[in-house]
Amino acid sequence: MFHESAPNISLSADGDAVVILDQSLLPNETKYIELRDSERLFEALAMLRVRGAPAIGVFAAFALYVIMRRTTAEDHASFYAQLIKQSSFLDSARPTAVNLTKQLRRIENLVNSLSEQPIPLILEAMREEAESIRREDAEMCRAISEHGLSLICGDSGILTYCNAGSLATSGYGTGLGPIFLAKERGINLRVYCCETRPLLQGARLTAYELSRAGIDCTLICDNMVSTVMKDGLIDAVFVGCDRAARNGDAANKIGTSGLAILAKHYGVPFYVFCPSSSIDLSRETGADIEIEQRPSEEITELFFEKPIAPAGIKCLNPAFDVTDNALITAIITERGICKAPYAQSL
Amino acid sequence: MFHESAPNISLSADGDAVVILDQSLLPNETKYIELRDSERLFEALAMLRVRGAPAIGVFAAFALYVIMRRTTAEDHASFYAQLIKQSSFLDSARPTAVNLTKQLRRIENLVNSLSEQPIPLILEAMREEAESIRREDAEMCRAISEHGLSLICGDSGILTYCNAGSLATSGYGTGLGPIFLAKERGINLRVYCCETRPLLQGARLTAYELSRAGIDCTLICDNMVSTVMKDGLIDAVFVGCDRAARNGDAANKIGTSGLAILAKHYGVPFYVFCPSSSIDLSRETGADIEIEQRPSEEITELFFEKPIAPAGIKCLNPAFDVTDNALITAIITERGICKAPYAQSL
Repeated sequence: MFHESAPNISLSADGDAVVILDQSLLPNETKYIELRDSERLFEALAMLRVRGAPAIGVFAAFALYVIMRRTTAEDHASFYAQLIKQSSFLDSARPTAVNLTKQLRRIENLVNSLSEQPIPLILEAMREEAESIRREDAEMCRAISEHGLSLICGDSGILTYCNAGSLATSGYGTGLGPIFLAKERGINLRVYCCETRPLLQGARLTAYELSRAGIDCTLICDNMVSTVMKDGLIDAVFVGCDRAARNGDAANKIGTSGLAILAKHYGVPFYVFCPSSSIDLSRETGADIEIEQRPSEEITELFFEKPIAPAGIKCLNPAFDVTDNALITAIITERGICKAPYAQSL
Repeated sequence: MFHESAPNISLSADGDAVVILDQSLLPNETKYIELRDSERLFEALAMLRVRGAPAIGVFAAFALYVIMRRTTAEDHASFYAQLIKQSSFLDSARPTAVNLTKQLRRIENLVNSLSEQPIPLILEAMREEAESIRREDAEMCRAISEHGLSLICGDSGILTYCNAGSLATSGYGTGLGPIFLAKERGINLRVYCCETRPLLQGARLTAYELSRAGIDCTLICDNMVSTVMKDGLIDAVFVGCDRAARNGDAANKIGTSGLAILAKHYGVPFYVFCPSSSIDLSRETGADIEIEQRPSEEITELFFEKPIAPAGIKCLNPAFDVTDNALITAIITERGICKAPYAQSL
């Protein structure tokens, strides 16, 4: 996995750039890119060069450090004002995953608390905080993977969706974490990954991660889930989470709620892997979570040789949907396995 | 629609070729191709240059005529033996839709019954029979559309899947028929079409047909169905059918059974448009219907600029699935609207 060789998100040697593996080019090209200015950092978030709820939180903390290193501010007040402006700009790149907002707020609060310190020391603290966020994320992955693995009994078929692996985090991943851990411990799982239209994270990223790790992996189109469940190939569904509300409603990649309904119909347990950094207790229910709408061209043109639909066709392209808590068998965080009623357990 | 200008399937002026609109090139190119020899006719079926259960039945009848016109047989016995061989070859191109088998058998039976006739007269009868099959198909479309339209009350949102329109038939279509008929009568429907991976018939063909006809049409990815149903945008689901068993289990494009489960969850009526030519009373249940498995490359490479999954990834690619009769609100044929128990009503 990536975190064992080069990390997906790091600082350049001079500390002047965030270096990321450009996920938009996978699986055809493994290219690390250096991002120095706020427009390019924003663009990397918006274009999903870096994605996955935990990973964009880590990225945002490093991005804010890199941007503020070039500040011309000479006092705390103007430094803080610039920070808030840059932080809001980055935050607007992706509205649904709460990790982005949460980690930006964490840096803002840190800087706010250091009003007596000289700017070089504030910057040093920002860098350390970003590294803490990344380290905590890696530790979260290990813990959530252990909890997840406890849900699997031996040789099983697991359905995964989108990418909740090492590319979405700073470690093992969330939904894919137990699968990597099982592999380490000699437990053989059969993993079915949904391609995940329109951006194909399942085909491009999950199938790539799993096959590199030597895990038995079968790619299916999103519309094949009913068939593989009916054929008895699936013992559990493991998905990630971009933002969970207080009642356990879970926003994740568009299509997740449909998987949960199919899982219920076929009696397959449906597990949501949600680090505590993705829980948003300020939202009562999923109805309070903003769903990002993305451009039509992602459906009709991106990745294709020629357009696959008539010119000018109207499209809907919500990037996420909300799975009702009633459809979720358990929500797994790094602290343990939560069952309904989620308002208590979360 | 196509049947108003050039038909999708016809004979060339010299009667020596089947002429089809090559659906594999839509929506980027509108190209008619002439198919003369059995290998090219077979390839057109296998590669979905012509597709849709009713259309492949019509095509097969014309194809058999064109192939047999070049026969060297001098007596009925050898003519019939060649016919059976060619018919079996064409039949093996697509196993799931029963129309292919049914219309080939119809021509075989006709030829068998003409053992006293000279070969030129047998050929003429084959041609007339193929034209009858096409005419009956067009009449079926009109009738099934009327029945379907009776299910809609005014301004509604209809979800469609794959392509059950004029490109799949010799007329208005089956699942799309009521939508075209509504348009003619000034009833405005909002139609949501699923792109239908991997071959994208919904995006390439249905969105194309609907937008050419000036019908309000929105394209979504297959994994967005749960969201549009939850948002209350869908009042009914209209799908076609490739083969219905005696008990009402209905084989249709992969993903159809998942739509039916989502429709049940959200309380949306789920209608299967199944001409009587697609009903196969010799199959007790859907478990007796063979599901065509197609190549992995359709998922990972076809239509794409670059492969969208790691090289050599294992894929499942069933072309169809079976929807349990319990999930179907009604099956609409050209003769009327059938409800459960289907063993009686069909």
